[in-house]
Amino acid sequence: MNNNKMFFEVSYSKALKEFGAQKINQKILDKISKKKKLHRFFESGFFFAHRDFDLLLNEYFKGRNFSVVSGRGPSEKIHIAHLKLFEFVKYLQDEFGAFVFIPFSDDEKFLDRNISFEEALRLGEENAKYLLALGFSPKKTKIMFDFKNINQDVYNISIKAAKKTTVSTIKASMGRRDDSNIGNMFYPAMQAAHILYPTFERGERVLVPIGMDQDVFVKLTRDVAPKIGLKKPSTILSKFTPSVKGYAKMSASSPEDAIFISDSLQEIRRKVSRMFSGGGETLELHKKHGGRPERDVALTYLKYYFLNKKQEEKIFEDFRNGRISSKEVKNLLFEKIKKFKKKIEKAKKKTNIEKFLL
Amino acid sequence: MNNNKMFFEVSYSKALKEFGAQKINQKILDKISKKKKLHRFFESGFFFAHRDFDLLLNEYFKGRNFSVVSGRGPSEKIHIAHLKLFEFVKYLQDEFGAFVFIPFSDDEKFLDRNISFEEALRLGEENAKYLLALGFSPKKTKIMFDFKNINQDVYNISIKAAKKTTVSTIKASMGRRDDSNIGNMFYPAMQAAHILYPTFERGERVLVPIGMDQDVFVKLTRDVAPKIGLKKPSTILSKFTPSVKGYAKMSASSPEDAIFISDSLQEIRRKVSRMFSGGGETLELHKKHGGRPERDVALTYLKYYFLNKKQEEKIFEDFRNGRISSKEVKNLLFEKIKKFKKKIEKAKKKTNIEKFLL
Repeated sequence: MNNNKMFFEVSYSKALKEFGAQKINQKILDKISKKKKLHRFFESGFFFAHRDFDLLLNEYFKGRNFSVVSGRGPSEKIHIAHLKLFEFVKYLQDEFGAFVFIPFSDDEKFLDRNISFEEALRLGEENAKYLLALGFSPKKTKIMFDFKNINQDVYNISIKAAKKTTVSTIKASMGRRDDSNIGNMFYPAMQAAHILYPTFERGERVLVPIGMDQDVFVKLTRDVAPKIGLKKPSTILSKFTPSVKGYAKMSASSPEDAIFISDSLQEIRRKVSRMFSGGGETLELHKKHGGRPERDVALTYLKYYFLNKKQEEKIFEDFRNGRISSKEVKNLLFEKIKKFKKKIEKAKKKTNIEKFLL
Repeated sequence: MNNNKMFFEVSYSKALKEFGAQKINQKILDKISKKKKLHRFFESGFFFAHRDFDLLLNEYFKGRNFSVVSGRGPSEKIHIAHLKLFEFVKYLQDEFGAFVFIPFSDDEKFLDRNISFEEALRLGEENAKYLLALGFSPKKTKIMFDFKNINQDVYNISIKAAKKTTVSTIKASMGRRDDSNIGNMFYPAMQAAHILYPTFERGERVLVPIGMDQDVFVKLTRDVAPKIGLKKPSTILSKFTPSVKGYAKMSASSPEDAIFISDSLQEIRRKVSRMFSGGGETLELHKKHGGRPERDVALTYLKYYFLNKKQEEKIFEDFRNGRISSKEVKNLLFEKIKKFKKKIEKAKKKTNIEKFLL
């Protein structure tokens, strides 16, 4: 799939077929909403595909708990979108009582990038503070840094998974080659161990909420799980968060293209103001003919991350009819991000990651 | 190098050249014996080659301690020869005050063989009891089972080593292929971490006493050490212990060809009686023309493992002249092994491996 498309050009039904995943259909949404609050990510279609999510829900509603694994490859900055994903993970904890495991793959960052061991460790801890600032319960949430508190069981699972995975498989699925380092070649086994740890430890099926471009890692884990006597994890796959310029994929390596929680308010204002707009060419034309909200990056951010369904419908309609301008939409988005940023940064100061260590 | 040779056909000077290692020469032996007890393994030429052992000795005699790393791939049974290697390690501890680290690569056995996780773990612990029965000091000896008490620093060093080692390198040096599992591909990095752990933790240069067929693993570690800011380990390389049938290499996979500490006394007696003999074809002829002690397996065992130099010289001479028969030599060897076995098994019962855990 070509990731250089504009975000509104992506065919998710085509992606579904390519991935061999199932659609998150109305039946699944009804199953959730009958007994639980339905998160915006479900309602808005942000999570659009799944593997065995229906199975996991059926088990859950028969009384069997599940765990959520949501890993983090530490990076200098954290996208707003990633924090919003972890906010969703917290919803799963609050609403479904799920145990949450957040492994930080500082080792993988170190293996894959030109950064030092110390920097990988530092980034992991710094990232953890932001994620935990969302308010996870210390009783039901554990974090692990591979470089700081790797767990014996996790290591053992990784070796079991590695025994069942050939070099050929990793070459074919991850594009590794003979000039790759042997850590990168091994790493998918460690990632499988991250995902399968709660299943091993608690006997619970795991749910992995993940961007659809990360699907390949979970697929490998799903292949290996039954071979080492563990339940296959379920996944739900999210759509891409559009980049500032409107491309399908926001990239951490292009800092001008993503909005980071640590960006200054000035930086955020600037980036939001440059967001690809679905409005008319001029304010005059916009007022006269209206805009295309589905092509507007700011509205897409608002829709997925900051508005409820009613608010979304109203603002989309107003934009379509030219009653609200691109500038006004961007101002609204800026205010929402500003509020979110303030809340997180305040909470981050009080966050003690030691309480969460596995 | 062809390992199916008879043990007395092996050219160690040729091996030296092939390996690019240095000879353990008289100068080195003198350096040791001037201030320390010279172990039989040095005196008898059992350890015949080295890398940077002279460097390590020079540093030591200037007041810098060294550590010894001697790993163990757990197996069902332990060769007498392997126990004797660990007895030598204990000599380094007693005589040089060396810190000893014994990592058990249960994970590697599991990855490489058709055995279960539980079996790999059990074998490791069982093997550890035998090795520790030799009388290591709990204060200066640490053991680690990768599957039981893997150390965070060891894991981190393995990732650092992995980053500096390509798949191509492992393919070329270890014969791994695309159909190898990714654990086996990664494993040399873990082995490097085992070897380098005391250097990382204590800042000491490491000495690895190892069979010459294991040299390739240490070579990889020597390549990677400076790339991750650690001192290269020194090695000393031992000759092969002949098999019962007189082949150059005793093999754990051929149980009739090696003498194991857990063999019954009957089994040991039987194996010793079948040892390839350098004696005359009949007792008559032996008495008349004498034998060739250098080709006698039992005498080789006696020489390396059970006799001092004077005793060796006398018995070799007597054998050469037909004054002592093959049967008498074998009886002597049996008595020596029996005594050794009794001592070890008695001590094993009192061994508490928990005291030694890293």
